[in-house]
Parts: sequence; structure tokens; C-alpha cells
Amino acid sequence: MTLLTLTHAQKLTSAACETAQEMGVPMTVAVVDVGGHLVSLARMDGAAFVLTEVAIGKAFTAASFGVPTAELAALFQGRTQFTTSIQVATQGRFTLSRGGLPLVVEGHTVGGIAASGGTGDQDLAVVRAALAACS
Amino acid sequence: MTLLTLTHAQKLTSAACETAQEMGVPMTVAVVDVGGHLVSLARMDGAAFVLTEVAIGKAFTAASFGVPTAELAALFQGRTQFTTSIQVATQGRFTLSRGGLPLVVEGHTVGGIAASGGTGDQDLAVVRAALAACS
Amino acid sequence: MTLLTLTHAQKLTSAACETAQEMGVPMTVAVVDVGGHLVSLARMDGAAFVLTEVAIGKAFTAASFGVPTAELAALFQGRTQFTTSIQVATQGRFTLSRGGLPLVVEGHTVGGIAASGGTGDQDLAVVRAALAACS
Amino acid sequence: MTLLTLTHAQKLTSAACETAQEMGVPMTVAVVDVGGHLVSLARMDGAAFVLTEVAIGKAFTAASFGVPTAELAALFQGRTQFTTSIQVATQGRFTLSRGGLPLVVEGHTVGGIAASGGTGDQDLAVVRAALAACS
Repeated sequence: MTLLTLTHAQKLTSAACETAQEMGVPMTVAVVDVGGHLVSLARMDGAAFVLTEVAIGKAFTAASFGVPTAELAALFQGRTQFTTSIQVATQGRFTLSRGGLPLVVEGHTVGGIAASGGTGDQDLAVVRAALAACS
Repeated sequence: MTLLTLTHAQKLTSAACETAQEMGVPMTVAVVDVGGHLVSLARMDGAAFVLTEVAIGKAFTAASFGVPTAELAALFQGRTQFTTSIQVATQGRFTLSRGGLPLVVEGHTVGGIAASGGTGDQDLAVVRAALAACS
Repeated sequence: MTLLTLTHAQKLTSAACETAQEMGVPMTVAVVDVGGHLVSLARMDGAAFVLTEVAIGKAFTAASFGVPTAELAALFQGRTQFTTSIQVATQGRFTLSRGGLPLVVEGHTVGGIAASGGTGDQDLAVVRAALAACS
Repeated sequence: MTLLTLTHAQKLTSAACETAQEMGVPMTVAVVDVGGHLVSLARMDGAAFVLTEVAIGKAFTAASFGVPTAELAALFQGRTQFTTSIQVATQGRFTLSRGGLPLVVEGHTVGGIAASGGTGDQDLAVVRAALAACS
């Protein structure tokens, strides 16, 4: 079984922070394991602390479904009751905001990564760049 | 190191209450530090108690981003999913209501201040008057 | 009906802070109305922010029962199940820590006051001194 | 104004992980700012995920009081009611477990650091080594 290592999580985190730095947008980057639990987190200087929970939530959500949060938003379109119930049950950890991607190794979801601090598209671009840099 | 002192927080609180008094609108005024934690709060006679949490939330939000809540509302225009995520993750503390301003000293955010009880514009006017009176 | 005014709440708050200052112990002082809702709060420079919620909780508890928190601890001695259920139901706001006193006017409870930051006895002494100074 | 930077937080995190690695004990290392909000986190391979919240809690607690958690345990000795109150009010974030230290710059607390995964003494040794390596 392939697992997510701290070394790999930190490479992803650093790569994401570098892209956010180039964009000039301070972000929080979170990487979680397949259980949705934090492995690595970095909050850049100037990143609003309230978004830390959002970054963790997006990585958590992507890991839990093995699907990008942006796709989940489309999948659950119109199912407000359902998504609200998950949000309440997870104390707000579950979210459909763009910018959370699953980490997949040999077809298996091993975790999730997310950035938070910019627009949804900026957050997503940062995470995609990190995955590309570390593949 | 510049920190927000209780003395300064109380001056701001009193100045805000005086302006609200002149307006004839009972308000709650909250001042938080850079971590979003309460330093000073005053609820004027007749101010609805449910708005107390709103005042704290607006100060918390302005402190966390270092940006007036009214500007955040413009920045996050149309990003309902995103703002709902933060609201849920912070158990409703995060808010985009007008009337929360960051407290900035030498270019650094040291906290936030907000008033709640009137219209958004009245709340904002009260907080602006407090900042002007104590600068 | 006699109500708690902001003016009176702020006098109590200031008197408590003065005593704490003389003791050399930075504290948070909270005054709530008869519904347990904040009217006045002051966190002195150097007071740990986690204790802010404790001060509010002690004032809330004293106001809700119209009894000092120290006496409640004796009244509820051995009733762990009961007190735990109140703590959970109030999300931790209810507490039996020493240092919360009801504010009573003409035999009616109009609110509560508490200090937090020292030992239970120090907190209680500060609140008692405030009541004595403002009676 | 001296603030905790991500660069410094990551140096501390890496130094702590290295010491834990040498000990052969997988740990989670958390660094928070003065408001108790996460700046950097690393969970080593094999570290139990339930301890992640403990590491965050110890760093949060040390930052909030500006005192090592081990000293707080001594200070609050016998005050079960009091410490339970804070634990409940902070939803379990507050803790007296050994291994959380404040980060102090020029006499001001700027944050906290903690490790979790070993015994209390091991956790503390790891954090102390990190502070020594980065001073």
C-alpha cells in the first residue's frame, strides 16, 4: 500500500507556497492523509488566519471523496440539504470551495492538498502547480 | 513591538459609544487583538444582545484580514460558497457585514474594532469616528 | 424593574481592573446582564486570551443562578453528571470556577460579574472589591 | 514590530523533527502565532493522527499564557475545576500536557511551539532542542 510521506507532503507544500509567492498572494497550504488528518501545513506571512481552517477543510474534503472540491460542487449541485448536513456533522470541515485536490498514487487516494488565500481559481492554480512540480 | 493596549482599546470603545449616543442608536462596540480575541467590549443600554456576537464577529473578521469588512464584502462578491465555508468553519464568527475596521499601527494590523446596532452605514460611521478621535 | 446599565457595568469593570492592577495580576473582567449576555469586558495587558471565555462563563453562570459560582460548586458537589450536562449544553459557558458573582439590585438578580487571570481566590477578591467600591 | 515568520516557524519545525527522528520517535510538531493560530505543522511518518490536535493544543496553550505547558501544570496544580473550564471553553484545545513552549522575542510572546508523539519528557526535549538550534 502506498502511503503519503511527510517528505512528499512537505515538497508539495513548498511548491505550492512558491507559486503563491510568485503570484504575490499570501496563502495557507494544507496537506492531509487519506483519513483527512493534517500531515503538513504552512501559513505564509500575511495570510489571514481564518482561512487556515478553510485550507484544511478543502484538503479534508478532497481526500474524503477522492475528488477535487470544484468537481464535488458540480456533483452536489442543488443538494443543499445534503451538503449542509455534512458541513454541520463535520463542524464546517467539509466544504465545496475550489482549490482542494485529492492526492492519488497508482489509482489510490492517499490524501488531499489545498491552498486558501486567493480566489478559488488562484487557490486551484497553486495546488495544480504543486502537483505538477512534484509528479 | 507595538501591541494593542487595553488603554487604547477602551479609548476607542468610549469614542465609538459617544458617537452612537449622539446618533441616538444604542450599539455594541467590540475591540479585538490581532488574534481576533476580545480586548474591550461595551454594550449600550437598549442594544439588542444578539448583536453582541455580530460586533465581535466584525472586529474578528477585520483583524483576521487586516481589511475593513465592507471591503471584504466587495472582494468576496459572488463567492457565496467560499464565504459560507469560512462562516461555518469559524462557527459564524466570520462576517461580511459593514462596520468592522482593522486597527493598524505603523503598517501592521494589531487588531480590529466594530460596532453593531444600527444600519451598516451607521455602524461604520461610528467606528470611523472612533478611529479619527483616537488617532 | 431595575436593570443593569452600561455605566454601572463599566464602573464595576474599572474597579475590578484597578484591584487586579494593584495585585499585579493581569485579568479579564466580564459583566453580563440577567440573560447572561455581555455588557462590558476588559482584558488587561498581559492577560491570557484563553481566560476571556472563562471570565465570561463565570459571569454567565453567576447571573443564571443568581448565586456566586463558588457556592454553586458546593451546591452541586458530587453531581458531576448534572454539571457536565450543563457544560456541554452551554458549550462550556457554564462553569463552577470561583470568581463569578451575581449582580443583585433590590433583591433581583440583574446580571453577573467575574474576573479571570489569577487564582480562584484572587479572582474572587477582585470581584468583591469591585462590588464594594460601587455599592 | 517583531512577528513570527513562516521561515522561522519552518526552521523550528524542521529542527524539532530532526531531533525526534534521532530519538526514533515519530511526532507531530506544531507552531502557532501569538493568537494561537497555526503557522506551521509537520506530522512525521508513523505519528498517530489523534496526537495532531494535542500538538496544536500544547502550542496554543503555551502561546496564550506565554509560559511552558509544564509550568502551567504546576501553577494550576489541584485546580481541576478551573482547568476543566478552560478545556471545555476552548473545545479541548487548552491542555497542560508537557511539551509546549512559548516563542519569545525581545521579551514578547510571539507564538508557541509543541511536539506530540513521545512521552511528555521526550516531547519537551524535542521542542527545547529546536529552540536551541534556531536561537
